[in-house]
Amino acid sequence: MWKTASLATKTRVEFVDVTALVNKEVVESKIKNGVCYVFIPHTTAAVTINENTDPDVLRDLTAGLERNAPKNGGYKHSEGNSDAHIKASLIGNTVVVPVINGRLGLGTWQGIYFCEFDGPRNRNLKIGVMGE
Amino acid sequence: MWKTASLATKTRVEFVDVTALVNKEVVESKIKNGVCYVFIPHTTAAVTINENTDPDVLRDLTAGLERNAPKNGGYKHSEGNSDAHIKASLIGNTVVVPVINGRLGLGTWQGIYFCEFDGPRNRNLKIGVMGE
Amino acid sequence: MWKTASLATKTRVEFVDVTALVNKEVVESKIKNGVCYVFIPHTTAAVTINENTDPDVLRDLTAGLERNAPKNGGYKHSEGNSDAHIKASLIGNTVVVPVINGRLGLGTWQGIYFCEFDGPRNRNLKIGVMGE
Repeated sequence: MWKTASLATKTRVEFVDVTALVNKEVVESKIKNGVCYVFIPHTTAAVTINENTDPDVLRDLTAGLERNAPKNGGYKHSEGNSDAHIKASLIGNTVVVPVINGRLGLGTWQGIYFCEFDGPRNRNLKIGVMGE
Repeated sequence: MWKTASLATKTRVEFVDVTALVNKEVVESKIKNGVCYVFIPHTTAAVTINENTDPDVLRDLTAGLERNAPKNGGYKHSEGNSDAHIKASLIGNTVVVPVINGRLGLGTWQGIYFCEFDGPRNRNLKIGVMGE
Repeated sequence: MWKTASLATKTRVEFVDVTALVNKEVVESKIKNGVCYVFIPHTTAAVTINENTDPDVLRDLTAGLERNAPKNGGYKHSEGNSDAHIKASLIGNTVVVPVINGRLGLGTWQGIYFCEFDGPRNRNLKIGVMGE
């Protein structure tokens, strides 16, 4: 049921559109009606669904998360990436998307974004499809 | 497996109790033991589970989210709703609820709330039930 | 499909590692390939996945959430725990984890944490496993 996909991020904070990658797994699963899960097996990255049209939305989301969890926030963890751990828990490491007629049942303006908060790194996503 | 429900929000930020609406779909699915998913196909709205008794909790949640993503935050996106996109990703666009004995297995004080962050608008929810 | 586990928290804000507790239910379900859900039936607690090695990460997460939802934030709700309700919605009350080869398919550094935001209290988790 679970497939692993890989990607390489290029900057410290980055939103990578993985919609096509995830949809490909849905199509290959041959499941017509069900649920698709995207699970991030990392603790300084996350996954979210947001607007797929104006890239300024993702820039504003980046700035908004920086306001909520500033990089230099007087943290204790010695690796210097505590903000990334906080952002990961705020956004969450899973999305759950309907599978309808053998494809992702996203809204018109929705894309699925892998959220890198401590890159650049090589990262994985686990994609699972369940249904009939 | 997936049904679409509609609602109309009346103000810019609003929490609409959809617990009864979602439970109706669970009952109609005739599934006794499984999982119910609520998926929001929009990028300036979300769904959360929180207290169903004192409406001040939702007022405080509204104010708390405004602190985290103020409406006027010096954003780049030209539509003036970047705060709504940020709030949507902070809260998330899905809830997953147990189905037990053919009903939502919520805690005593829990309700499911559609979260409007850029209303008033006509909105949809996708409700899916999986199990036996 | 759903089992209930209990725990007692000891302080107001606390992250309790429930990974072994959840994995035990996965093993007992005898499901080899599927999904495990952890659902929190409370409105001042949550569940998240984050680093399982350096406890400073959880201390920083505690401080980061306090920045986003301070205990004394001029709230309306009379019980004095509005910050806990806000934190609960920011973090979320569910995690969804792959089940692979009959065990939780977490990343190397990931643990599942019950998040107490208004303790000490006696709390429950609902754990469900679905698959084959």
